[in-house]
Amino acid sequence: MPNPSLLEMFPAPTDSPFVIEHIADEFTSTCPKTGHPDFGTITIRFEPRPAKDGGECVELKSYKLYLQSFRNEGIFYEAVTNRIRDDLAAAMKPTWLIVRTDWKGRGGIRSVIRASSGNVPAEYKQ
Amino acid sequence: MPNPSLLEMFPAPTDSPFVIEHIADEFTSTCPKTGHPDFGTITIRFEPRPAKDGGECVELKSYKLYLQSFRNEGIFYEAVTNRIRDDLAAAMKPTWLIVRTDWKGRGGIRSVIRASSGNVPAEYKQ
Amino acid sequence: MPNPSLLEMFPAPTDSPFVIEHIADEFTSTCPKTGHPDFGTITIRFEPRPAKDGGECVELKSYKLYLQSFRNEGIFYEAVTNRIRDDLAAAMKPTWLIVRTDWKGRGGIRSVIRASSGNVPAEYKQ
Amino acid sequence: MPNPSLLEMFPAPTDSPFVIEHIADEFTSTCPKTGHPDFGTITIRFEPRPAKDGGECVELKSYKLYLQSFRNEGIFYEAVTNRIRDDLAAAMKPTWLIVRTDWKGRGGIRSVIRASSGNVPAEYKQ
Amino acid sequence: MPNPSLLEMFPAPTDSPFVIEHIADEFTSTCPKTGHPDFGTITIRFEPRPAKDGGECVELKSYKLYLQSFRNEGIFYEAVTNRIRDDLAAAMKPTWLIVRTDWKGRGGIRSVIRASSGNVPAEYKQ
Amino acid sequence: MPNPSLLEMFPAPTDSPFVIEHIADEFTSTCPKTGHPDFGTITIRFEPRPAKDGGECVELKSYKLYLQSFRNEGIFYEAVTNRIRDDLAAAMKPTWLIVRTDWKGRGGIRSVIRASSGNVPAEYKQ
Amino acid sequence: MPNPSLLEMFPAPTDSPFVIEHIADEFTSTCPKTGHPDFGTITIRFEPRPAKDGGECVELKSYKLYLQSFRNEGIFYEAVTNRIRDDLAAAMKPTWLIVRTDWKGRGGIRSVIRASSGNVPAEYKQ
Amino acid sequence: MPNPSLLEMFPAPTDSPFVIEHIADEFTSTCPKTGHPDFGTITIRFEPRPAKDGGECVELKSYKLYLQSFRNEGIFYEAVTNRIRDDLAAAMKPTWLIVRTDWKGRGGIRSVIRASSGNVPAEYKQ
Amino acid sequence: MPNPSLLEMFPAPTDSPFVIEHIADEFTSTCPKTGHPDFGTITIRFEPRPAKDGGECVELKSYKLYLQSFRNEGIFYEAVTNRIRDDLAAAMKPTWLIVRTDWKGRGGIRSVIRASSGNVPAEYKQ
Amino acid sequence: MPNPSLLEMFPAPTDSPFVIEHIADEFTSTCPKTGHPDFGTITIRFEPRPAKDGGECVELKSYKLYLQSFRNEGIFYEAVTNRIRDDLAAAMKPTWLIVRTDWKGRGGIRSVIRASSGNVPAEYKQ
Repeated sequence: MPNPSLLEMFPAPTDSPFVIEHIADEFTSTCPKTGHPDFGTITIRFEPRPAKDGGECVELKSYKLYLQSFRNEGIFYEAVTNRIRDDLAAAMKPTWLIVRTDWKGRGGIRSVIRASSGNVPAEYKQ
Repeated sequence: MPNPSLLEMFPAPTDSPFVIEHIADEFTSTCPKTGHPDFGTITIRFEPRPAKDGGECVELKSYKLYLQSFRNEGIFYEAVTNRIRDDLAAAMKPTWLIVRTDWKGRGGIRSVIRASSGNVPAEYKQ
Repeated sequence: MPNPSLLEMFPAPTDSPFVIEHIADEFTSTCPKTGHPDFGTITIRFEPRPAKDGGECVELKSYKLYLQSFRNEGIFYEAVTNRIRDDLAAAMKPTWLIVRTDWKGRGGIRSVIRASSGNVPAEYKQ
Repeated sequence: MPNPSLLEMFPAPTDSPFVIEHIADEFTSTCPKTGHPDFGTITIRFEPRPAKDGGECVELKSYKLYLQSFRNEGIFYEAVTNRIRDDLAAAMKPTWLIVRTDWKGRGGIRSVIRASSGNVPAEYKQ
Repeated sequence: MPNPSLLEMFPAPTDSPFVIEHIADEFTSTCPKTGHPDFGTITIRFEPRPAKDGGECVELKSYKLYLQSFRNEGIFYEAVTNRIRDDLAAAMKPTWLIVRTDWKGRGGIRSVIRASSGNVPAEYKQ
Repeated sequence: MPNPSLLEMFPAPTDSPFVIEHIADEFTSTCPKTGHPDFGTITIRFEPRPAKDGGECVELKSYKLYLQSFRNEGIFYEAVTNRIRDDLAAAMKPTWLIVRTDWKGRGGIRSVIRASSGNVPAEYKQ
Repeated sequence: MPNPSLLEMFPAPTDSPFVIEHIADEFTSTCPKTGHPDFGTITIRFEPRPAKDGGECVELKSYKLYLQSFRNEGIFYEAVTNRIRDDLAAAMKPTWLIVRTDWKGRGGIRSVIRASSGNVPAEYKQ
Repeated sequence: MPNPSLLEMFPAPTDSPFVIEHIADEFTSTCPKTGHPDFGTITIRFEPRPAKDGGECVELKSYKLYLQSFRNEGIFYEAVTNRIRDDLAAAMKPTWLIVRTDWKGRGGIRSVIRASSGNVPAEYKQ
Repeated sequence: MPNPSLLEMFPAPTDSPFVIEHIADEFTSTCPKTGHPDFGTITIRFEPRPAKDGGECVELKSYKLYLQSFRNEGIFYEAVTNRIRDDLAAAMKPTWLIVRTDWKGRGGIRSVIRASSGNVPAEYKQ
Repeated sequence: MPNPSLLEMFPAPTDSPFVIEHIADEFTSTCPKTGHPDFGTITIRFEPRPAKDGGECVELKSYKLYLQSFRNEGIFYEAVTNRIRDDLAAAMKPTWLIVRTDWKGRGGIRSVIRASSGNVPAEYKQ
């Protein structure tokens, strides 16, 4: 079951603004209606708050374990996307954050969902 | 251990503004959590200050040795990126500088980090 | 847990030799050493025995459910490959059968495993 | 319902051996288990018997209508492939014939089926 | 109407064997059943007989005009292919000749027809 | 320092012949002449001996750690290739084994080295 | 006008067999029927006779000037191909020689002509 | 040694503004630190002043000889780029000029340097 | 010798603005310094004046003959480009016109020249 | 001047046969007729004699310096190719060796030269 307590933080290493992008190609959860597995790519981009303001970044291995905690969860694409956005926003309180999920086709239909918090710069919106 | 004293400078060859880009495909450091090696590409772009203002450029072979000094350092992606930005900014005091790091996948997750100093023109931001 | 009883057969529709290939892009199991999920593509190719000899073909939806039964199994790549070969060979007793598994990179290493039974024609071996 | 009576023949225009290939990208039938539509590409290759032996070729528009007659039929991939092979072999009595069907993914599984009659030359087998 | 009298020959320029290939991308004829235009690529490959044996080659502009004479003819793909093979074989009496016709899709079906005379070397058969 | 004692084996899961391929994109060692780091891809392919003959396969994580043990070793490309071949051949006693190493350019020169033991089938030689 | 006296030779530098390939992308001549320019690529491959047997190679700049001497000549593709084969065979008396000419489309028809002398190895025939 | 006296000019052929781009793929100089050869591509783009104002363009063969004069010069990438910009700006006094140099990798690092004079339109800046 | 009297016009067929592009891949002239042939692609784009204002378009076959009239002219790239721009601007008096010439490499240098008259819209400038 | 004394050897690390390939993208020499620089790629493939027979391999950095010794030599493509073959064959006495040189276009002509010693296996001949 999606488990945000798995997420570990480390202090932002600088006061200067910088941007982090993590692209996870091997996400899987299950469909709450049919029970069949869903497969997708989860991309997150964010700017941590400055170090002096207590800014934090998500640690990569803990983020991997967090994504793995969706493995046997029955959950819609839309809910996955918003859940990750909410969990990361709560944990890091970043200056801004965007989550993009790209789902493999089921029944001939591919899907892309985007959710964000804060003011995402135009060049990171796609 | 990352060693900025390896960086050698040479005087900017002109007062006219110009832009330098170095793309290093063979960067490696280690993960501070797992000890496993990390592999990435380090791209830097900068405009040196004019020669008349004492502008300097980093010498390429010394820059290669500097990057090699991270080889056995346990250090997060985010810290690598900000460290290089800070060391080069301190050494060259460039008009502007951007550092982009692209990391090979670990556990199915690829990462891209960008850090900058000064006003990076839009066409060099990506 | 891998469950060959999920496999359903239907009678081969003809006495003439013919060749079937199924390519499953969304296979996942887990690593028996680390517990981390593995992701791969499973390709099977086979020639069913003739209808008059009681030849049978695996039904596609049942095959999908069979592959999904590996989802939470801790099992090596090599064992997955041989297990699928053994289960399908037992269920269909095909004239020949080859199983090829292509695994996404883990720790920077991608793998391909091939196992077969019977005389696989050269043009289907790769 | 698949209707071979739609197939019209015209006399082979020559006694010399020659080879015909038709590639139909827009085939659809339905799954007999789930009722969902299947989409695929049907490729046939054959050498008609010589004109002096009463050789015949399938007329292209009639072949298109024949393929369309599968539209609402619930039928397995394997049966589609063998049915087309049987219907065309019966109608044309060609020197040799091969039918290859490539099916779009369903539940993450793509399939390719090949069935033939007579001695298909090596260069036409794939 | 297809008019082989348009074909002009010129003497083979040598006694040594050599091979000629002409690829015509802009062929059009009409369908004898529907009256709709067909579009295709006509490829011919041949080895002329030696000059000392009265070998001849088809002149390129006359060949273009010959192909244009099919423009308003209602004629099947198979007949086009064999007709060109027969007309060129009669006019040039080449050591060997192969005609390959590739037809653009009609109703979702693309076609390829091959006809030859004499012993076509393996490397020119496709 | 290259450490074959890191290699762990597990019993071959079957008596049937099958083929394993592991492709490691992130290998690094150092040049014994200049001390500079080398980067390459290590591909191994092998057929384990049958289970009944005590056949064994190298476990993937232990193989990764073995490759990492070259990280700070000064060693020529040719020696890396033969060393891996020798260590794996000694540990697994496979029916056959081939090691291919592809090295990134140094001073404008890229290199590929291949070493094998036993009879490598033609389709696995490249 | 094609001028073989422009061709200059230099002695083959060795007794060992070796193979030379020259690919000229910028050939032009004119059509003897219409006067319009033709454009093509001329590829030659040959093995010079050994130095001890008086073997000679064509010098590259002289070959370029020779090809330029066709610029305003009205000449068929087939004659160009055989003329170059004859002129080079006479000048170099090579162990073997093949000339391949690829002509840009005229009136929608592209052409490829191949002519050779001596025993061309299979891997150089195309 | 870089020799701007090799540069020859010819009068701009028009008063209308127009833009010239020359891309030289085969530039080589040497590294002033190591003595090893460097290889790169030199791209220049410029708008000559109008003919009525005494505008001039660099003649292509003289420009090639000028670039060849760097062949055995020990000179940094940055100095090459600014030197070419300065020499061409002095010789042609163009309305605007940009020089872009792309250097092949050395020690795993590729570089791109851009220097300009005058107002380079946005579409020519990259 | 370049002969603009070869250019024939036909009246613009409409008052509505529209845009014409002709791409000629087979242009050749000669170098005025070395006498060697030059090869290039000539692209023109223009908007004819409205029919009611006496707008005219260049007829395609006459344009081909005009381009062929450069065949044996010794003329610089820059002069070719401006000459075509001037001749077409004089003949058609278009609302706007751009001529882009792409020249094959000579001595390792490729060139692109652009000349225009009138206000070329941004999307046609490249 | 080509200097084979720069070549350094190291003992073959094994008695088992293995194959080495070095691809040098940045070779340059000069044309003995025109003095202009030539640029090419030099590929060598060889099997060293077994260690027990005193087999030796060329050391990579010494090979780079050897190739650089051609930089200002006026020498034909054919002579470069045979010279490298002869120098390496004399220095290493390999079981077999093949040298392939690919030259960038000059005056619109690209060239490929291949020279070998010993019995080169078919899969390494191209």
